[in-house]
Formats: sequence, structure tokens, C-alpha cells
Amino acid sequence: MSLLVQKFGGTSVADADRIRAVADHVARSRRAGDQVVAVVSAMGKTTDQLVRLADDVSATQPRREVDMLLSAGERITMALLCMALADLGVEAVSFTGSQAGIITDTVHTRAKIVEIRAERLLETLAAGAVPVVAGFQGVSTDRDVTTLGRGGSDTTAVALAAALGADACEIYTDVTGVFSTDPRIVPEARKLAKVSYEEMLEIAATGGRVLALRSVEFARNHHVPLHVRSSFTWEPGTLIDEEDTTMEQAVVTAITHDASEAKVTVLGVPDQPGLAARLFRGLADRNVSVDMIVQNTSTTGRTDISFTVPGYDLAVSTEVAESLVPAMGASGVETDSDVARVSLVGAGMKTHPGVTALTFETLAGEGVNIEMISTSSIRISCMVRAGDAERAVRALHAAFELG
Amino acid sequence: MSLLVQKFGGTSVADADRIRAVADHVARSRRAGDQVVAVVSAMGKTTDQLVRLADDVSATQPRREVDMLLSAGERITMALLCMALADLGVEAVSFTGSQAGIITDTVHTRAKIVEIRAERLLETLAAGAVPVVAGFQGVSTDRDVTTLGRGGSDTTAVALAAALGADACEIYTDVTGVFSTDPRIVPEARKLAKVSYEEMLEIAATGGRVLALRSVEFARNHHVPLHVRSSFTWEPGTLIDEEDTTMEQAVVTAITHDASEAKVTVLGVPDQPGLAARLFRGLADRNVSVDMIVQNTSTTGRTDISFTVPGYDLAVSTEVAESLVPAMGASGVETDSDVARVSLVGAGMKTHPGVTALTFETLAGEGVNIEMISTSSIRISCMVRAGDAERAVRALHAAFELG
Repeated sequence: MSLLVQKFGGTSVADADRIRAVADHVARSRRAGDQVVAVVSAMGKTTDQLVRLADDVSATQPRREVDMLLSAGERITMALLCMALADLGVEAVSFTGSQAGIITDTVHTRAKIVEIRAERLLETLAAGAVPVVAGFQGVSTDRDVTTLGRGGSDTTAVALAAALGADACEIYTDVTGVFSTDPRIVPEARKLAKVSYEEMLEIAATGGRVLALRSVEFARNHHVPLHVRSSFTWEPGTLIDEEDTTMEQAVVTAITHDASEAKVTVLGVPDQPGLAARLFRGLADRNVSVDMIVQNTSTTGRTDISFTVPGYDLAVSTEVAESLVPAMGASGVETDSDVARVSLVGAGMKTHPGVTALTFETLAGEGVNIEMISTSSIRISCMVRAGDAERAVRALHAAFELG
Repeated sequence: MSLLVQKFGGTSVADADRIRAVADHVARSRRAGDQVVAVVSAMGKTTDQLVRLADDVSATQPRREVDMLLSAGERITMALLCMALADLGVEAVSFTGSQAGIITDTVHTRAKIVEIRAERLLETLAAGAVPVVAGFQGVSTDRDVTTLGRGGSDTTAVALAAALGADACEIYTDVTGVFSTDPRIVPEARKLAKVSYEEMLEIAATGGRVLALRSVEFARNHHVPLHVRSSFTWEPGTLIDEEDTTMEQAVVTAITHDASEAKVTVLGVPDQPGLAARLFRGLADRNVSVDMIVQNTSTTGRTDISFTVPGYDLAVSTEVAESLVPAMGASGVETDSDVARVSLVGAGMKTHPGVTALTFETLAGEGVNIEMISTSSIRISCMVRAGDAERAVRALHAAFELG
């Protein structure tokens, strides 16, 4: 008998039929002898509808109230799933984030879990019932309703799996797993049977949309095996677990791309120590996550500093950079949203030095210009023109024989 | 400075525009120097939509999960109202039933409030902010989400007004107050400036749909003045308060009607003590509220017992009656849904004995047959054919000069 946390995302519970299908799957798991804790998201586009409603009502949206609003969605799903399970003779009990003991800090709309008090869930499991928990939400140490931000339901599932000592955390979604690249761009993309936490972190960070970065981090830190699979076909998906060091690693596991970043360049910065630090401190103070940074060494005494940020942070980044132009003695700021990042991820890169060379050769052969580059031990990311991104992905997928 | 509890029903918060109008009214009350606690219902038809969704998903609907589902609606309204108030510069904080300290018993879908722990609301008021509280919901002594059943949001508002010692509880709705009869039937119906709790109880019990019976009972028991008014015109409405014994009472205040009752007759019951008790004990055990009862004295040793019940209780009432036919030695059961109850309510009836006579004369003059009759000290109710009800209402409204 295993203890499984099964998380069902918005598309998996989008309507009454889907909810009944999920109930059927949970019931099968129970009948197979496993204990199940279900974690659910809001149905389909519910959250988007609530956001639109808020925009219709008010320009001033206190974050505490945004959390109160958005947390309504999961309540609906979890109550309905419990009803569908009751129809199948499976006893189930729904729990809000607060009732499930998911205690967070007080940062509304992007709270962090600080503690899980799982007594009620454990009692429910001991009684033979299925706890159905609202994903994405918790209760703060100030007793207010909080939400966990992007990918919050995945984080709820992983955190519960860790707290309950679950054998696995199954993330059900509308794709059958993690692919070697986006199948919409490369039809011969291959589903990966197994990916290490480290690879999955890089895939999530560079545009793979299947799992949110923070839930993978949480899983790695707490050694929770993740299984990403489809709630439409129910076939085995992709297992995300510790790196298997007993086997030779694939050099490159996946090619990702992300067109949501933008590039900011501060022009004509005097080549003096501390000026760049001032810029990045200013950005950090406004909570902007800077990704790539390029600063050429200069022979003229002046240099251009380029960096990339998430597209939604472009406005505030530009504002910060422009406000610092006088103090830095720079000559101006340029921005460019027409860029995309193409990344190669693979644990085997650590021991295969030829990856960078083949990447450059492949992109050069396609006439794709690399504007910026950044690397980690298991990733290479290239910033290219947005219009070149899909061609780059296809060429790299073929060159590294991932099909 | 007064402390006002202002309750806004579903039609008052049906869309973004209505919510902004409500925020504007709350802001005006604040600027006029009053403290306000707002209580809100789910938006428009939200609750109906959730009920339909549940019906689509499941035939088995555990009541605990029904409550979890239905309680989502008010969260949406209260968060949106707080946002709209923020837009107007009024600080507001939303509270779920649980956060507002509304503690109920454990009877899901029709819980009763057992205690109000108002500390958080009092702190919020002391800080100069407007607490916006979810109507209709609470948290049980078992820490589960509960709902209060029909008219639950009115009950929440009155209970909070009592607990906070508010100066008045304003119930905002889509009509301008309590009328001398249904204006859809009698266009010259008059809005009543003031009604006593006792009259309002009889009006609510006999078909006046403006306020739920239990909220009026609660208001009377805790001496909370109620003010029923429109959130569309904002004009002064109807005040419901202690009876004003210093003035002469109107003989009849209002004519109500209710076509939702049904009549059940147990035929040929032997005239022996205890048989009727057995019938009504059986109905009580199934939670059926019996309204009128008629049992003629018999000269033949057998009698017919007729009683009326809410239409939704007809099936179970018939089942109970039929199951007792053998034990009672009765000859059968007849049911009749084609009836309506017409009632006259007025505190002045207590001292004016002629009301019954004029009622009978008026209905006889219209050719309306009275099938059953029941009275209290301030009410006369007549069961008539459903098709005769509106004619009866018009004739009585005119005869007692209520226009």
C-alpha cells in the first residue's frame, strides 16, 4: 500500500465530465489498495474569470482581497470532486488550505508555505477516507487567506507529499509528460520517461511549462518523487527523481524556448567599479529577477550593459535603469522585447565539453545570430531574435538527435 | 455616530456596476460619520449556478460538501466589494463566516448560529476600517464550513447587529420596502413606513418574501431595529421595530398570499383519542412543518383530518400519512396542491373583533370559497382555490382600505 498525493490541474477538472473522470481515477487508486490525498486547482478558466471580474470592479485591488477572491475557485472544485467520489462509494472530505493546515507567510498573492499542520489530513486518512485539498491556497500566520502564486497548486501537492511522507506525488495535467521539446514546434519530440530534479529545474526555468520551478525545487529539497502524467489518457508519464548516476547520461535531454523575456541595455556606462552593482541592486530592490547579463570589457572607457528580465518586469526595469542613468554617467537605455531564449538542458553536459561547439555550429548553419549566452553546468541558453526561435529549436533538436 | 450593519442581497451585488454602487453607498455612510459592517450575499444567480453544477457532477451530495461549495459565492462578492471600497479610498477588510467568528452547530445546509466571536470585527472597526462579512455561512463547532439555509444572509446580518450592539440593521434588496400587499397583484399597494416585529413575523410566515422568518425572529428576540430598503433607489424603506403602543393601530396592515402550500387529507379516521397525535408525531419526526390543521367533530364516529404543508414537503407528508393509514384504521389519503393561502396581518386585530366578519363577507361577495381557516391574535389565514387567490387579495385589500 502506497500513499499517493494526486494533483489535478485546471484542465483536468474543467467541467462536470472531467471531474467525474478524476473521481473514477481516484476510486481506482483506492481500490488498488493505495491511500490517496487529492489536490485540486480551480476549474478551467475560473481564475481568469475572477481576475476579469476584479478588473471590472476596481482599479485598486488590495492583495489581501485578491487572495480572498481567487481562493474561491478551488473550493468549488474540491466540493464537487468529493460529491463525485461519494457517487462512487468513496468517502472523501474536502479541506481548504486553512483546514488542511497549510500555514504560509503573510505575503499576499505569492505566499510561501512555512509549515504544514497535517493532523486533520492524517485523521482523515486513518479513517479510510480521501482528503481532497484546495491547491494554491493557505492561511497566513495572521489568520488571513493567502495564495501561493504561479504554480501554487503544484507546490501545495509537493509540500503535502513531503509533510505526509508520501511515496510519490502525481501531477495530472493535459499533456502526457515532459517532452524533449515543445511538440507543437517539433512533431517528433519524444516523451521523456525519466528526468532528474536538476534537469527539470533547468527545463522549468527556461520555458518548459509543465511544472512550476518552485514545486520542482521543493520536491528536490524534500526528495519527493514526482510523476507528471495526463488526466485524459492516464498513461504513464515522466518520472522526476534523483539523478541516476549509475547510468551514462544523455548529453542533451531537452530543448526549451521562452519568448516571454525582454532585453534592456544601458548604453555608454563608464568603466568604473560599482556602477553595475548599483543597477542590479536597484532592480533587486524592485523584486525584478534578472536572468542573463552581458557586459563587454571596453577599450574606450565606456561599455554597454545588457540584461534580460521577464516581460512583465520590463516596464519597472526600464524605469529603474533610466532613473540611474544620471548617477551612472550613462548615455541612455534601450529595450527590446523581440527576443527569445533557446536553451539546451542535459545532465550529461557536465562531462561532455562539445555541446557548446555543436550548438554554435548548428545555429550558425541556420543563420541564427546568438545575441547573448548564459550557461550552467547542465544548461546552455542563447538569446536570439524572436522570429528565429522556432527554427533554432528544430535545428538543435535534430542536431542532438532527440527525436 | 451610529454603528450600522448593512446587508446587501444577491440582486444588490449582481454585477460589477451594482457592486460599485454598493461601495459608493457604504462610502457615503462612512463619510456621514457612521461606522459600517457590510454583509454580502453571493452575486445574483451564483448560488443557483453552483447548485446546477453539483447536480451535473453527482447524485450523491454529502451536505458537508454542499456547504463547502455554496460558501464560495460570498467570498467572491466580499473581496470585490472591498476592492471597490479601496477604489473610493475606504479601507475595508473581508471576513469569511469563520473569520468573522460566526460559530454554528454542525447541521450542514441549515446550521444555526450558536455564538459570535466578534473580536476581529471589533478590531477592524476600531482601526477605522469597514469589515465586509460573508453572509449565509459560518464555521461549525467541528471546524467545518456550514451554511445557514434560506434567508441565511439576513440572519447573519441580524446576528452580527445583535452581537455588535449595532444601532440598526439595514437590509438592502431589490424592492423599496414591505408593502400592504404584493404590488404585482394590487398596483395601488402601499409601502409601509413601519411594521412591528410581530406583524412582520406573520407577514414573513404567510408569503411576504422580503425577509426570512428566522431573521425577523432573531431581530425581535435581540431588539435589533431592521430597515428594509432598496439598493437601487436608496430611498427610505420600511422600519421593523417594537410595536408602538402609544398610537392606535391599523386594524389590518398587510394582505399576503402563498401558493406554495399543499393540502393533505386523511379520510375516515375513527374518532378515537391519540390517532391524530400519531399522525403529527410521524410528520414531526420527518421534519415536516405543518401549518393549518382542520378536524371536524364527527357524528358518525369517523372524521377527515386535513392539514397543509410546504409544497416541497408534500411527497414525504403523503408517504407518512399513507404509511399510518392501517394503524389509524383510516380509509385513505387525498392530496391537493391546487390551493393558496390568503392572510390578513395587523396588530390592531387584537382589539377589533370585526375583522373575521368583514373577511368572510368580502370573500363571499367575490364567490371565493374558504376551505380552511386559521388565526392568531394578529392574523387570519384562509385556504382557498389557487385560482381564486389573486381575486381574494384584491378584494380584501380594497375592503380594508389599504391602498
